[in-house]
Amino acid sequence: MGFPKPIEELIDRLNDLPGIGLKTAERLAYHVLGQPSADALALADAIRVVKETVRRCTVCGHLSQGDECGVCSSGRRDRKRICVVETPGDLVAIEESGAYDGLYHVLGGRLAPLEGTEAEDLNVDKLLERVFNSGVEEVILATNPDLEGDATATYVSERLASAGVKVTRLARGLPSGGSLEYLNRAILSDAFGGRKEI
Amino acid sequence: MGFPKPIEELIDRLNDLPGIGLKTAERLAYHVLGQPSADALALADAIRVVKETVRRCTVCGHLSQGDECGVCSSGRRDRKRICVVETPGDLVAIEESGAYDGLYHVLGGRLAPLEGTEAEDLNVDKLLERVFNSGVEEVILATNPDLEGDATATYVSERLASAGVKVTRLARGLPSGGSLEYLNRAILSDAFGGRKEI
Repeated sequence: MGFPKPIEELIDRLNDLPGIGLKTAERLAYHVLGQPSADALALADAIRVVKETVRRCTVCGHLSQGDECGVCSSGRRDRKRICVVETPGDLVAIEESGAYDGLYHVLGGRLAPLEGTEAEDLNVDKLLERVFNSGVEEVILATNPDLEGDATATYVSERLASAGVKVTRLARGLPSGGSLEYLNRAILSDAFGGRKEI
Repeated sequence: MGFPKPIEELIDRLNDLPGIGLKTAERLAYHVLGQPSADALALADAIRVVKETVRRCTVCGHLSQGDECGVCSSGRRDRKRICVVETPGDLVAIEESGAYDGLYHVLGGRLAPLEGTEAEDLNVDKLLERVFNSGVEEVILATNPDLEGDATATYVSERLASAGVKVTRLARGLPSGGSLEYLNRAILSDAFGGRKEI
């Protein structure tokens, strides 16, 4: 005699989510059971609404409710620059920083053959098309500062070589607010290698 | 410019779940976005079905799809014993062990004033009613072997004092398969205190 079937089903479904083990799935299922119905159904609806209304921006690949995302359809962005990021989450982080006001291009991942992501899985052809067909002057590579991110940046910059556009990469060095004592060798090595005269 | 509204909503809802922080909620929301629609909607449906069809057994408080749960309505249980557990999950764990074939009573929590669970939140009145009105001979307290579980067991046994029923508590000692070297002081202390002549 175990749980009623619907609970088994919910536990299984939660357990299918990444990083959610069986015990966590059970805990979440109890929580859903104990929640006011309105709250639990709001989660169910949120999932449904996302699947029914959210798609990829046809221009940059960001998440969007219409054909074009808010950035691509905005009249107040610097349209001469495209910042290339791995994921929509990276784009949102940059937007929230307020450090950039140009356009974006979301690759939808990074080169990681071991995880099954190959060059052809990345949204690069569309980037080339945008660069060739519009007045873009600079492509800023903002992939993550790690091995796969660097490989991805190298791959994208090679693909862009013939486009006659300026290609830059975000600076590497000490993270503001960090403490030298706790930074690792790769960060310090970047910081020394990129030092500037003042 | 951040995520489209429906994604913000989904992230918020996931973030409301216990143990799911903002970053995890974002990761789960991406996963849902990337899943085949059928899988994501199956999760939404599982939540809905649970909220619509699962309730508490009117006898023992376990989760049930009908008025009475599978254990209470079974004809093959020893109806002279009731095992008192904190949660439906505890009940299922005992069932899966096959170590017990009597009835259950689910308290729906444990005494933990700091977490806001007081004595009146526990399903104890109903337990007394069952003990007084049926031929129960033994009540086995199977609350968790920790501070709150012990306090809960003490409270329930005090409430049962006038019922003239045998009240027992699960044995404490070395966990089978464990290694003495790694067991903590409380476990070893229980094991010494409860030692038996062989």
